[in-house]
Amino acid sequence: MLKNITKPTLILDKNRAITNIRQMAKKARISDVVFRPHFKTHQSAEIGEWFRKDGVQAITVSSLEMAQYFARNGWNDITIAFPVNLLEIPVISELAKSIRLGVLVDSDIAVKKLSEELKALVNVWIKVDVGYGRVGIPWEQWGKIVSLAKHIQNSSNLTFEGILTHNGHSYYAQNIAEIRAVYTQAHSRLLSVKEILSTSGLRTFKVSTGDTPCCSIIDDFEGVDEIRPGNFVFYDVTQASKGVCSYDDIAVAVACPVVGKYEERNQIVIHGGGVHLSKEFIADVEGNKLFGYLSNFCGGESIGSVNFDAPVVSLSQEHGTVNVSGKLFERVNIGDVVLVFPIHSCMTCNLFDEYVTLDGGRVSRI
Amino acid sequence: MLKNITKPTLILDKNRAITNIRQMAKKARISDVVFRPHFKTHQSAEIGEWFRKDGVQAITVSSLEMAQYFARNGWNDITIAFPVNLLEIPVISELAKSIRLGVLVDSDIAVKKLSEELKALVNVWIKVDVGYGRVGIPWEQWGKIVSLAKHIQNSSNLTFEGILTHNGHSYYAQNIAEIRAVYTQAHSRLLSVKEILSTSGLRTFKVSTGDTPCCSIIDDFEGVDEIRPGNFVFYDVTQASKGVCSYDDIAVAVACPVVGKYEERNQIVIHGGGVHLSKEFIADVEGNKLFGYLSNFCGGESIGSVNFDAPVVSLSQEHGTVNVSGKLFERVNIGDVVLVFPIHSCMTCNLFDEYVTLDGGRVSRI
Repeated sequence: MLKNITKPTLILDKNRAITNIRQMAKKARISDVVFRPHFKTHQSAEIGEWFRKDGVQAITVSSLEMAQYFARNGWNDITIAFPVNLLEIPVISELAKSIRLGVLVDSDIAVKKLSEELKALVNVWIKVDVGYGRVGIPWEQWGKIVSLAKHIQNSSNLTFEGILTHNGHSYYAQNIAEIRAVYTQAHSRLLSVKEILSTSGLRTFKVSTGDTPCCSIIDDFEGVDEIRPGNFVFYDVTQASKGVCSYDDIAVAVACPVVGKYEERNQIVIHGGGVHLSKEFIADVEGNKLFGYLSNFCGGESIGSVNFDAPVVSLSQEHGTVNVSGKLFERVNIGDVVLVFPIHSCMTCNLFDEYVTLDGGRVSRI
Repeated sequence: MLKNITKPTLILDKNRAITNIRQMAKKARISDVVFRPHFKTHQSAEIGEWFRKDGVQAITVSSLEMAQYFARNGWNDITIAFPVNLLEIPVISELAKSIRLGVLVDSDIAVKKLSEELKALVNVWIKVDVGYGRVGIPWEQWGKIVSLAKHIQNSSNLTFEGILTHNGHSYYAQNIAEIRAVYTQAHSRLLSVKEILSTSGLRTFKVSTGDTPCCSIIDDFEGVDEIRPGNFVFYDVTQASKGVCSYDDIAVAVACPVVGKYEERNQIVIHGGGVHLSKEFIADVEGNKLFGYLSNFCGGESIGSVNFDAPVVSLSQEHGTVNVSGKLFERVNIGDVVLVFPIHSCMTCNLFDEYVTLDGGRVSRI
């Protein structure tokens, strides 16, 4: 498959992605929650169809542009899980005329502007901050949440859809136990807000949560109506390193030509830099920066297993430097193509216009 | 100018970029070296024309794709300053038929393949590693460099163009004194290689060097024939923080809508994340991660001065979190647009398809 590749190329293992989708869809069914996957990771209409085959009808995106793209591709129930951008109200109005559109708010000013300027009915979620500290009304500010919900309910062009959280701090957790602890705390905070809203006269609303670490680890979503994980479709080295998935679940890798080989330091240099992999890194066990791992791929029906002896140790704009020791160093040569598993698949995929599958097919992105 | 902006947009201060170009071109003229600027930072045919007005006739790029793009746009003397990718020899042959093309090698295998397979005359530079440790033959391996130069000279379809270095370790230097020290050491190593080659019967070759920190700081390029800086066209927070340029020289910024405001922590959240700014960061004076600074821009003919009291302190895929205190916090509101100066302009610009100038004009990229 790599024979026709001459430059950095995003490779997709379709079987792995479909298995990842199927497993999360199954978990949602068993747990009796709506599966509203986040499509920001793959951003591909064709991959979206793989979700549809597993019964998915409603999706999440993180920008109005993505919402427009997926609406053009037949999706008619979309939540933009990002604080509503008030500068985009005219376009939001237009889109909301043709699909069921959800937006997020965490301020009075946003609700006021939406209710004044929207020209179509929009579903509004209140973003609640249950510990991540990025956006949302802090969970303990119950009065503010109740007041905002009523403000929404009283606006003729807004429907109060419910409360929505993103436990983004689960990405800071180092292992499964820590992820469970994040979920347990965040979940209890979320349910306390739900309880307060219910006893304040707001009854018919939903509770939405979701992030790949928690949704991969947790089985019991009691009190939650829908989950919105995204990264799980491809996973990556970060998630595997924490035990959220297996390394063999990682469904994307970047094919990179080898352009340099340096015996005195047991390194190779690949055409594969920050503009292909992104500059995301994690620390390896010794605390060194790790920008990815080579795959053991040498043909076959999957993109291969991770080669822990071949870490990408530095990246510049176009170059990647890989430590390669032992027999692999003898085998690999200038002019070969190697596969690199990414640290953060969302950021890596964003740098390419398309995926190439193992049978040479092309899958376009937004 | 920001009135028509509704989503993250790359803003270009044309005057600052032209001033940066003019200053470097002037320095090259005074220092009597050829100015072969690296176009990987801007990757724009239109911006390329601004260089042409300053007398530039030869350029540097870092991929074959960029070489093809600039060749289509009238550039006929291009060096691809990246170890030659042997998988691209057919395309290199094609391109070399119509322009004066230079490529880099640091191995016998590359020279052998080029001499066997190239169908057109190509200029070959030997990449010499003078301390960066990324690619190139280490400077002290003189025998290998001389032998490779002769190998090139003896190939009928290759011209030995000279030796080329990139002092990339100047980017690790923390201040001007350290950058000078990097240059001094690298330069003496480079001249020692030049001397050995000259006394080995290789007389008509050139010496090329270049990186923005050194080329901005150094005035005397004795023994060097050409310089290849790239980042200086826009500079960025990293370069300004080291004194390589002034903060007022930074010529690009990302316009980002404000989507959240949080009084309890004096932070705003912008639509401007890792997919807009890149995940590059430096450490601020207290050792915290810094992903950019807001500009004080409030209209006018430049993109404004840096607001050191408004650092971007974290980025996720689409969100940026900015610490904003005092009066600015009172003034800024959800629905406003702010400008963010990038940490590394090469990586940030790579994430956009076009620049928007302060008069609302559009400048396309590759």
